[in-house]
Amino acid sequence: MKKLINGVDTVVIDALRGMAAAHPSLRVDLDNKVIFRRDAPRRGKVGLVSGGGSGHEPLHGGFVGYGMLDAACPGEVFTSPVPDQVIEASKGVDGGAGVLHIVKNYTGDVLNFEMAAELCADESIEVASVLVNDDVAVRDSLYTAGRRGTGATLFVEKIAGALAETGAPLADVARIGREVNERSRSFGVALTPCTVPAAGKPTFELGDTEIELGIGIHGEPGRTRTSHRDAREIVRLAMDAIYDDLPLSGETLVLVNGMGGTPLMELYILFAEVSAYLHEKGATAVRSLVGNYVTSLDMQGFSVTVCRLTDELTRLWDAPVETPGLRWGR
Amino acid sequence: MKKLINGVDTVVIDALRGMAAAHPSLRVDLDNKVIFRRDAPRRGKVGLVSGGGSGHEPLHGGFVGYGMLDAACPGEVFTSPVPDQVIEASKGVDGGAGVLHIVKNYTGDVLNFEMAAELCADESIEVASVLVNDDVAVRDSLYTAGRRGTGATLFVEKIAGALAETGAPLADVARIGREVNERSRSFGVALTPCTVPAAGKPTFELGDTEIELGIGIHGEPGRTRTSHRDAREIVRLAMDAIYDDLPLSGETLVLVNGMGGTPLMELYILFAEVSAYLHEKGATAVRSLVGNYVTSLDMQGFSVTVCRLTDELTRLWDAPVETPGLRWGR
Repeated sequence: MKKLINGVDTVVIDALRGMAAAHPSLRVDLDNKVIFRRDAPRRGKVGLVSGGGSGHEPLHGGFVGYGMLDAACPGEVFTSPVPDQVIEASKGVDGGAGVLHIVKNYTGDVLNFEMAAELCADESIEVASVLVNDDVAVRDSLYTAGRRGTGATLFVEKIAGALAETGAPLADVARIGREVNERSRSFGVALTPCTVPAAGKPTFELGDTEIELGIGIHGEPGRTRTSHRDAREIVRLAMDAIYDDLPLSGETLVLVNGMGGTPLMELYILFAEVSAYLHEKGATAVRSLVGNYVTSLDMQGFSVTVCRLTDELTRLWDAPVETPGLRWGR
Repeated sequence: MKKLINGVDTVVIDALRGMAAAHPSLRVDLDNKVIFRRDAPRRGKVGLVSGGGSGHEPLHGGFVGYGMLDAACPGEVFTSPVPDQVIEASKGVDGGAGVLHIVKNYTGDVLNFEMAAELCADESIEVASVLVNDDVAVRDSLYTAGRRGTGATLFVEKIAGALAETGAPLADVARIGREVNERSRSFGVALTPCTVPAAGKPTFELGDTEIELGIGIHGEPGRTRTSHRDAREIVRLAMDAIYDDLPLSGETLVLVNGMGGTPLMELYILFAEVSAYLHEKGATAVRSLVGNYVTSLDMQGFSVTVCRLTDELTRLWDAPVETPGLRWGR
């Protein structure tokens, strides 16, 4: 295993030091391992907290800032954050209007965020939660009961974050987050496994001519293994899986996401195919992101996430955002 | 070789189709293979044109837009664009104030941009050029006489682009581009080779415990091969090479750049070390970028680029930019 690290035990804290050094707009609490907006808490604004295992960067820490998250709690690599992190984050962002927890549907994340929410209630912090479960690939997996949460997490964080910035109450911010999740679906494909530093070897084996369909973001097994094929055919497999679950029409927001080791050139090739597929179905990608946003360390592969937009969601998507990983139009 | 492509002969055009579909702010001329700002040419504004081999995305096409490039010419993978592309691009962005060619120092790029500049002169388009040669690793290489052009290209494109946006004349825009290049130095390190689609196999072999120091952006050999080690030590090797060439002090702009296959978490770990190194030398990274900006397909590794700032350069760096790959503060 060759990685650009100082030791397998310090990857998370060393990366947090780097984020602190690179982004003056953030306040990184190294003791509690929480990444805050520097200006948190904002009085009267709902505070948004997310978190999950490390190794998916820029998710979540890279999405802390104006118009998106107020704090993120990075767990160890592919490991849920502990409740104490979530409590510290929630306290630190509570400006009196309550706190929204955005939780990807993995058993450990769900349990730890729930425990944190209960303890926040004891301290009179009002908490609501949005559970993200957009991955159509498998119903249950090694890490999850029900669907996994993947790319739509970014959409929920951006759109709920934009609404929170307007001063909307907690119930509304939670409602829009759930709406985004309900209108979004994802599917992932891996060409290679990834290597968790502490494990030192790939999470699974995949032959030179094989791909894994319906992969999750932790290198866990997907729906099925098949032979490698053209980008066009692979996109069709992924989009059919999404379409079977949620027929697509009208205006959509599309994320073509690299898993960490995929060249951007290939992501654009995939996007062209996704766009053509949507067109064929009478839908359009009116908003899009192409790049590495919800990654699995060094895995080669991609995921595609589609959200069926409404005017309100489009407006909130377009609203200004200023984070290390997503930034526009302030 | 597993890649997310439709065929080794169509990777560039397929990726251009994806860029066209994803970015309404661009006008992609598929026949001539040129990526334009949609609003080009802008009357009275110096037009900025860059280009080079594909496989380095988001460089250059991802940097076309307000405050940066007016057009980019992607060659085939790791292959210079042909003069005709550069001529089409120059014609398309000439708003009467002349055109600046930003050229990375590779023999083919230099020759083809020079030829294009001469032909532009025949058509009464005034052209000036900035040659980028920031890589301190090797004096001559397989692809280059003199130093190679790498990460500083992004700095030149951003800062010259910002000045051009103010309506500055061609001579001034060229001057600032050269100043940025002169004040910038880079060094790259590879953990793995990359695989060019048309070749179908890695550009070189590297053992399980070896790294290549002073790598270029085409998978060409570097300065030396050594044993893999901690991020801290690797950063020291890279930064010492830069420092030996250009002593660093005061305020700097730092790019910690992934080569395409490196997890963002590792880039932040590296940034923390770069920041500590600079501090030790009495310098500070007052502006920074951490991510995949000047890549080599799926290579694992990184490069670090440092620019010694002036007040003018900092102001131009901070100026609004709106491109697919770099975007802020409009």
